Amino acid sequence: MRSTYTEKLEQLSTGLAEMCGLAEDAMDQATEALLQADLPLAEHVLATRPRFDELAARCEEQAFALLALQAPVAGDLRQIVSGIQIVADLKRMGALAAHIAKVAARNHPEHALPEEVGGHVAEMGRIAVALADAAREVLVTHDPQRAGHLQAEDDAMDDLHHHLLTVLMDREWRHGVGAAVDVALLGRFYERFADHAVQVARRVVFLATGEMPDQVVDHELL
Amino acid sequence: MRSTYTEKLEQLSTGLAEMCGLAEDAMDQATEALLQADLPLAEHVLATRPRFDELAARCEEQAFALLALQAPVAGDLRQIVSGIQIVADLKRMGALAAHIAKVAARNHPEHALPEEVGGHVAEMGRIAVALADAAREVLVTHDPQRAGHLQAEDDAMDDLHHHLLTVLMDREWRHGVGAAVDVALLGRFYERFADHAVQVARRVVFLATGEMPDQVVDHELL
Repeated sequence: MRSTYTEKLEQLSTGLAEMCGLAEDAMDQATEALLQADLPLAEHVLATRPRFDELAARCEEQAFALLALQAPVAGDLRQIVSGIQIVADLKRMGALAAHIAKVAARNHPEHALPEEVGGHVAEMGRIAVALADAAREVLVTHDPQRAGHLQAEDDAMDDLHHHLLTVLMDREWRHGVGAAVDVALLGRFYERFADHAVQVARRVVFLATGEMPDQVVDHELL
Repeated sequence: MRSTYTEKLEQLSTGLAEMCGLAEDAMDQATEALLQADLPLAEHVLATRPRFDELAARCEEQAFALLALQAPVAGDLRQIVSGIQIVADLKRMGALAAHIAKVAARNHPEHALPEEVGGHVAEMGRIAVALADAAREVLVTHDPQRAGHLQAEDDAMDDLHHHLLTVLMDREWRHGVGAAVDVALLGRFYERFADHAVQVARRVVFLATGEMPDQVVDHELL
């Protein structure tokens, strides 16, 4: 009985890590689709949504079944409750990557991004993917130290987001209102994705240490 | 024992409804601050954040304590798990209202909104507040029918959001890139707030019926 229970808990962890990996891939591909105005790649990202939703539903059901059938205590209980919260964060990460793919698809065959901000957005994409990768690793290893390191990368994301808005607000912006609106919303999608990845890692810290994570520091710039 | 348990469950429900009411008030006041360029009101919204965070932490702790100490089953378990998920939605609603207040404060003494879109944004604010109010009511009454009605108001929000983006993208837009960026982000904040309110109501339906809510229909327009 106990071993089946432990197995089921591990299945839940594995499912969460798999979801996080899918969100990471989606973000990587959506950014590439955006930078290269690559419609098939954008469509590929959007086509992965049902698989992602199925996995989310499965994780939620597994967590609920563990709570209902096993009346877990202490550490196990924390892990399951965190798991339920983590599913919600991962769902948002998947949705945000899909939003980026939609912006790429909607602007095709034009590039959604003026060249001037391409490098910036590429860097935001790189950090977003790195944060998702770190969160995925933390989901597997439960290493609170690794989780702590995510904050620095999230700060870098916030700086980039802030700078991007500054570029948009500059009088020298020559790319019109439509491009500015897209870039502003894209910036927000990257920043939110990063925040959720950090939140996932924080919840794992709660899981490892039993201490409630701080309120996620709200670095959002608006 | 049983009656204490039931009391604690009711405390959790009451706490969630209180949080939802605070999010509703914050949204109402943030919208007013935005429309009137009212700095003291914007600052008042921001000053309520710690109270909101305390309440969220208390609700999470109550839910966790119920799970840990009482090993609940069936309906009670669903209610507690939903409660944990609802806290996360309500936290986002509070943060989004605060974002709107920040835009108002940052633009003061100027108005953040060109007159042309003021009526639009006022209407989005009205729907956001109505949705939060309905969600609060559903949290108290657990009435699945009332929850079902929220979808129509959420659709109205999506239409307004879509129209707002159309106005921004129009060649006739004369208010510059900075205002367009603010309006685009504001539109997104209202739309997200509405989505979370609907999500809260859907989770209560799950609670009342035991059926997993559908994936929240992702009406986001980007």
